[in-house]
Amino acid sequence: MIERLAVIGVGLIGGSLARALRMAGQVGEIIGCGRSRENLELAVELGVIDRYAQDPSIAVRDADLVFLAVPMGAMRELIKQIAPLRRADAVVTDGGSVKSSVVADTRAACAGMPAWFVPGHPIAGTERSGVGASFPELFRQRRVILTPLPETDPQATERVRAMWQATGAEVSEMSVAHHDELLAATSHLPHMLAFGLVDALTRMDCRDEIFRYAAGGFRDFTRIASSNPVMWRDICIANRESLSAMLARFSTEMSDLAASIRDADGEQLLDIFTRAKAARDAFVDGASPLD
Amino acid sequence: MIERLAVIGVGLIGGSLARALRMAGQVGEIIGCGRSRENLELAVELGVIDRYAQDPSIAVRDADLVFLAVPMGAMRELIKQIAPLRRADAVVTDGGSVKSSVVADTRAACAGMPAWFVPGHPIAGTERSGVGASFPELFRQRRVILTPLPETDPQATERVRAMWQATGAEVSEMSVAHHDELLAATSHLPHMLAFGLVDALTRMDCRDEIFRYAAGGFRDFTRIASSNPVMWRDICIANRESLSAMLARFSTEMSDLAASIRDADGEQLLDIFTRAKAARDAFVDGASPLD
Repeated sequence: MIERLAVIGVGLIGGSLARALRMAGQVGEIIGCGRSRENLELAVELGVIDRYAQDPSIAVRDADLVFLAVPMGAMRELIKQIAPLRRADAVVTDGGSVKSSVVADTRAACAGMPAWFVPGHPIAGTERSGVGASFPELFRQRRVILTPLPETDPQATERVRAMWQATGAEVSEMSVAHHDELLAATSHLPHMLAFGLVDALTRMDCRDEIFRYAAGGFRDFTRIASSNPVMWRDICIANRESLSAMLARFSTEMSDLAASIRDADGEQLLDIFTRAKAARDAFVDGASPLD
Repeated sequence: MIERLAVIGVGLIGGSLARALRMAGQVGEIIGCGRSRENLELAVELGVIDRYAQDPSIAVRDADLVFLAVPMGAMRELIKQIAPLRRADAVVTDGGSVKSSVVADTRAACAGMPAWFVPGHPIAGTERSGVGASFPELFRQRRVILTPLPETDPQATERVRAMWQATGAEVSEMSVAHHDELLAATSHLPHMLAFGLVDALTRMDCRDEIFRYAAGGFRDFTRIASSNPVMWRDICIANRESLSAMLARFSTEMSDLAASIRDADGEQLLDIFTRAKAARDAFVDGASPLD
């Protein structure tokens, strides 16, 4: 049970966490914090938060659990600001998509890794942003990865685990580095391909016609290109090492594929497509619901 | 009104056309043809076709409209087989995704482009295959492109246009070359990216874990990697010129993007993502329903 939850950044992720915990009866009071007063007023109206403060150091003052859901470029300053003013027994966790940068930011902000900070990442989301897009079922049957460090208090990790479990998520733990490699492959690279494809098409002369004749497959494929640009700029920079490695790997794959197409090598093409289809079909069969 | 329709290849596309025309009351008898007797039996059971013949030259004998919905690698032989045995007033059209190769195949099979052949392409589909996946609404509010040639009989084109309009599709005409460039951009390239991504991930050591932690965005993004491998092998080879040009264009885009990530060039990344998001959001707003 959380007595008082502070959510810094009441958007899709922060708002959905607040809604889910409220629905589960696992939280007393919820205090929101963010830069847009309009969004915070809407969050109060929607019943997502009980009240708000625009100053993070005020928002966290009485909270026993603090959730940071801001773009990763804003993490370091935020942690520096709240660290000295948090309640002594408060646990702080985050939802950032790259754990190495959050850990580096925390170390820098606190002169070492504090025991009360539990790096975390819910593998959930949609291409929409803002509290209006939030809903309490977002994390149900989704995975949440925690990446506690040797310095992290195991009891703090347990509190964060219990919080996510209350939303219906399945929680697992792994190392910071492994998390960042995994996410580069499954999330960051696909987002780059979707953004890159749509951008490449918008630069073509017949762009209007292209979009006019695009069909349902294109719509699904490019859905993630509607994601928040600032958030993704920050993710790219934060995870640039793992993401660069994945981009290089993909580039090799596509060079091979392009060569097979140029050479009309039907056997090789059939091999690639058959292997990919089998893996994708198995993924869908296995992934719904949680395996 | 079609007296007798022959559908060669009773799969997702051929089956859906048969169902749609039946539902619209625009067809008398429907004869199916294909290599799998099991699939044809199922098509009869489902009421998609009235009867079938496994020999295309028998299937087309009494038909006044013939629809070819086979992988593009099978087109040339098929056209050669049916050309001499079709009814004298029969119109033949196809649903192939690359028009230049179908036209080349037809020219080769008939020693010149016959007036009765209308190259066509419904921009619709799902990642599923076979008559069991077909449904009568597949073409509703979708676009169909016809690419008639100077040799094509305008009345034949009109008959094919009327057929597609009866399914609820919007029909337009353009040149063969323009069609193939457009489809390379909106469909063939995205399919290559999806196949290439899934294949690249299956070659990684931690492939099982990767698929375990993939989320909804990944599922949407890779849906088209579940498409029919033989069909896509044939599309790649048939459209290798336009597709190679698009792959090169995309490769340049991704090299630039990779450089921006490596250099942590936030301004450049934000530009790309913002431009892509705006184009994708406009596409969705404008594309639903038909603009």
